[in-house]
Amino acid sequence: MSFTLVLGGARSGKSACAQGEAEAQAALVGGRLVMIATAQAFDDEMVERIARHRLDRGEAWVTLEAPIDLSVALAGLSASDIVVVDCLTLWLSNLILTEQDIPAAAAELVEATAGFDGALWLVANEVGFGIVPDNALARRFRDEAGRLHQVLAQAADNVTLVVAGLTLRMK
Amino acid sequence: MSFTLVLGGARSGKSACAQGEAEAQAALVGGRLVMIATAQAFDDEMVERIARHRLDRGEAWVTLEAPIDLSVALAGLSASDIVVVDCLTLWLSNLILTEQDIPAAAAELVEATAGFDGALWLVANEVGFGIVPDNALARRFRDEAGRLHQVLAQAADNVTLVVAGLTLRMK
Amino acid sequence: MSFTLVLGGARSGKSACAQGEAEAQAALVGGRLVMIATAQAFDDEMVERIARHRLDRGEAWVTLEAPIDLSVALAGLSASDIVVVDCLTLWLSNLILTEQDIPAAAAELVEATAGFDGALWLVANEVGFGIVPDNALARRFRDEAGRLHQVLAQAADNVTLVVAGLTLRMK
Repeated sequence: MSFTLVLGGARSGKSACAQGEAEAQAALVGGRLVMIATAQAFDDEMVERIARHRLDRGEAWVTLEAPIDLSVALAGLSASDIVVVDCLTLWLSNLILTEQDIPAAAAELVEATAGFDGALWLVANEVGFGIVPDNALARRFRDEAGRLHQVLAQAADNVTLVVAGLTLRMK
Repeated sequence: MSFTLVLGGARSGKSACAQGEAEAQAALVGGRLVMIATAQAFDDEMVERIARHRLDRGEAWVTLEAPIDLSVALAGLSASDIVVVDCLTLWLSNLILTEQDIPAAAAELVEATAGFDGALWLVANEVGFGIVPDNALARRFRDEAGRLHQVLAQAADNVTLVVAGLTLRMK
Repeated sequence: MSFTLVLGGARSGKSACAQGEAEAQAALVGGRLVMIATAQAFDDEMVERIARHRLDRGEAWVTLEAPIDLSVALAGLSASDIVVVDCLTLWLSNLILTEQDIPAAAAELVEATAGFDGALWLVANEVGFGIVPDNALARRFRDEAGRLHQVLAQAADNVTLVVAGLTLRMK
C-alpha cells in the first residue's frame, strides 16, 4: 500500500509521528496495528523500557520482536496489516554487533518492503549531522546508517524528517 | 502576540535570525527590544563573551539575565515588549547542573509563553542529529533537550529551523 | 553562471547529488566536468580512497587537487567549466591544521566564487547538529564550519540540504 521512511534526531518525536500516522490509517481503513520492535533486552533497564513502551502503545497494538530478522518478520505479515518498525537504528546496531553483511541485509530489507502490500513505516535516527566521532566503531556506524537511509529513501514512497515533533516531507 | 521557536545547529546563525526578526517587528510596530540571556559567567572567557554580545546588539536592546528563572523573567515583561530568549540550551544546562525538575520547568515555561502577550522568540540548539554520545550526562542532556523542544514546538505559533543562516519554516 | 552550496550529513549522498546535478548541466549545455578534490593522501587508506573516487566518477571528469589553494584553483578555470568542489569540510580541516587565517580564506573563497563565471557546486558537511564535542579542536572546527557555511550560503545562488540522498532546497 505505502512505505514511509521516518527519519529524526534523538527524542525528536519520530516514533510518535509514525505511530500516529499508522493509527490514523487504521482508523480510516481498519487493519491490525503491528509494532515490529528491534530492541534487545540485554539488561533490566532495557527490559523495563521495552515493557513501558508496550504499555504506552496500549492494547490496540500487537508487538513482534525482530532484532535481526526484520525481513523475515515483514514476510510473515498480511496485506491488511498496518506496520511500524521501530527502529532501524537498533536493527543496524544489532547487525553490526553480530557481524552481518550490512549491504546484503539492506538489499533484503528493500526487497521485503517491496514485497509487503500493507502500510509500513520504518523509523530511523538520523545520526550524520555531528562532528566526526573519535571512536572508529561510531564512525563505521554512521557510515552504514547513512548508506542504509539512502537505499531505503530511494525505495520509499514517502520520506519524512521529524524535528521537535514536527514533520517535514522530503519525498 | 506571537511565539516563535528558533532551532538551529552550532553557529548556524539562529541568534542573528531571531534578533533580526525581532528588530524588524520593533521597526514595524514599535516596542522595547528585550534580550533575555541565559548564559552564566563562570569564568573570564564567559564574562568577555557576554560583554561582546551586549556590545554587538547595540543600544537598542535591553538585556536581562535569567540563567534559571526564565518563567519569572517572562512574567515581568509588558505586552508591548519584543523579546528574544538566547538560549534555551544554556538554560536547560543550568537547570540540569542545579538539579531542577526539568518537566516541571518546561511546563512552567510553556505556561509563561502562553501568558505573555508580546512577541517572543526562543532560541535553542538542535543537538539530536549526531551519534549517541559516550558520555551519560551528554546522553541525558540531548534527551531532555529533545523533549523540551517537542513541548515548546507544540505550544509555539511558529517553528523555524536555521541552517547556514537560512530559515526553514517547520510550523 | 550559478553557484550552489550543497550541505549534508555524513554519507547523506551530498557528493552524488552535486555530481549528478553537474552532469545534468553538462549534458544540457556542454562543458568540461571538473572535480576539485580537497582531500590529502596522508596514508595508504586515503591514497586508495582517492583513487577509488576517481574511478567511480569515470573518464568524463577531470580531477584537480586543491587541499589549500582552492581560490587559486577556481581562478584558473574557464567560464564554460562545470565544477564540483568536494569537499569544503576537508579544505577547512586542512586550513586549520596548517594554521591559516580562516575568515580571510573564507572571504577569498567568496570572492573567487563571485569571479567564476561557470557553474559551481561546493559540497560541505553540516556538522553542527550534535552535542557539544568534548574535544576543544572539534569545538573550534564546528564553529569555523558553521561560520564558513553562513558566509557561503549568503553568497550562493542556491543552497541545498541533503538528507538520505534527498534534496531540500533552502535557497
